[in-house]
Amino acid sequence: MSALILALDTTSREEALRIASLTADHLDAIKIGYPLVLGAGLSIAGEIAALGVPVIADFKVADIPNTNTLICDQVFAAGCSAVICHAFPGGDSLEACVASAHAHGGECFVVCEMSHPGGAEWFSGGVAERFSGMAVTAGADGIIAPATRPARVAALREIIGTKKIYSPGVGAQGAAPEDVKALVDGVIVGRAIYGAADPSAAAREYRDRCR
Amino acid sequence: MSALILALDTTSREEALRIASLTADHLDAIKIGYPLVLGAGLSIAGEIAALGVPVIADFKVADIPNTNTLICDQVFAAGCSAVICHAFPGGDSLEACVASAHAHGGECFVVCEMSHPGGAEWFSGGVAERFSGMAVTAGADGIIAPATRPARVAALREIIGTKKIYSPGVGAQGAAPEDVKALVDGVIVGRAIYGAADPSAAAREYRDRCR
Repeated sequence: MSALILALDTTSREEALRIASLTADHLDAIKIGYPLVLGAGLSIAGEIAALGVPVIADFKVADIPNTNTLICDQVFAAGCSAVICHAFPGGDSLEACVASAHAHGGECFVVCEMSHPGGAEWFSGGVAERFSGMAVTAGADGIIAPATRPARVAALREIIGTKKIYSPGVGAQGAAPEDVKALVDGVIVGRAIYGAADPSAAAREYRDRCR
Repeated sequence: MSALILALDTTSREEALRIASLTADHLDAIKIGYPLVLGAGLSIAGEIAALGVPVIADFKVADIPNTNTLICDQVFAAGCSAVICHAFPGGDSLEACVASAHAHGGECFVVCEMSHPGGAEWFSGGVAERFSGMAVTAGADGIIAPATRPARVAALREIIGTKKIYSPGVGAQGAAPEDVKALVDGVIVGRAIYGAADPSAAAREYRDRCR
């Protein structure tokens, strides 16, 4: 079984809060990103968290250590429970994110593989494995790896042991919870919930399928 | 000679506007990042641009194509003239940033090398050259390469031809405008200007040294 995480990829504050209110009871977390935050402001994180659901800031943080620290400190001060960052800028940049997360009692997840076509250009040939190793070395709490490639998720599981894996790609991108729920700690679903005619019913259905 | 770009790495809206007002007359552009925008809101971009200086959003955009498009569309709608993105999420992600920039009459710059210690872990062994090639292929307007390594900047210039190069690392990080001003199109200075006792005088001095 796996947790269910909603990727709340709407850009309007009102729509985001409407969907979050309708679905929060059936979710283990809500993941927000810059398209929403740039329009609604980072305070949207606290508004969603106030509904009783942990918020994950999927900011794919990818800067120098000091800038990463400043970004993550704001993420957690705003009420988020976790942040997602990139490994590519190096171990020191990654460690800055982990340090900020842990100083705030939060978690840090590392993107180890991306599921869009261009993701294969650089996140391949052993790179995802090396990123997973960096996540372990930096003391991160988990990694992000695509549900559309369960064999890859299984390979990265070997490297990270009991750290968490959150997997996007379920729903509109074609994967099913059943493909990976035994392998991962959290399944990330976006459009199939927030774009559903009845988001609450869709969230409940996905939650049941993750159990 | 080179343009002078201020890296406005303050996190407070009031301090950012104070520094921008004091220095705008001596600058060719102001670069802002997420540490400022997360606190002040993206509307700070328009407030700075209203001072008559172009604003560059150094967001190191690094997501899937659709998310990159949503981020960049908001960047330009807010009044920015350029965006900085990463190449490692792949050519399609990069092209999404370029397309958004050009649709808004703006520019897109690609991080090809990072100057912090961890930057050497992945941006090495020919990777910066490949990123520069991706910038050319995607039709980006220029690249970001560190003034602290002029020989590297010169090597990347061979690849990108007449596209622009903006170089951070001048001032507090140790490089001087004279190290790279013949090689690059813009020198990026941060703390040595915004942290100076007299930011206006510091900006004027750096501008003169870039000419």
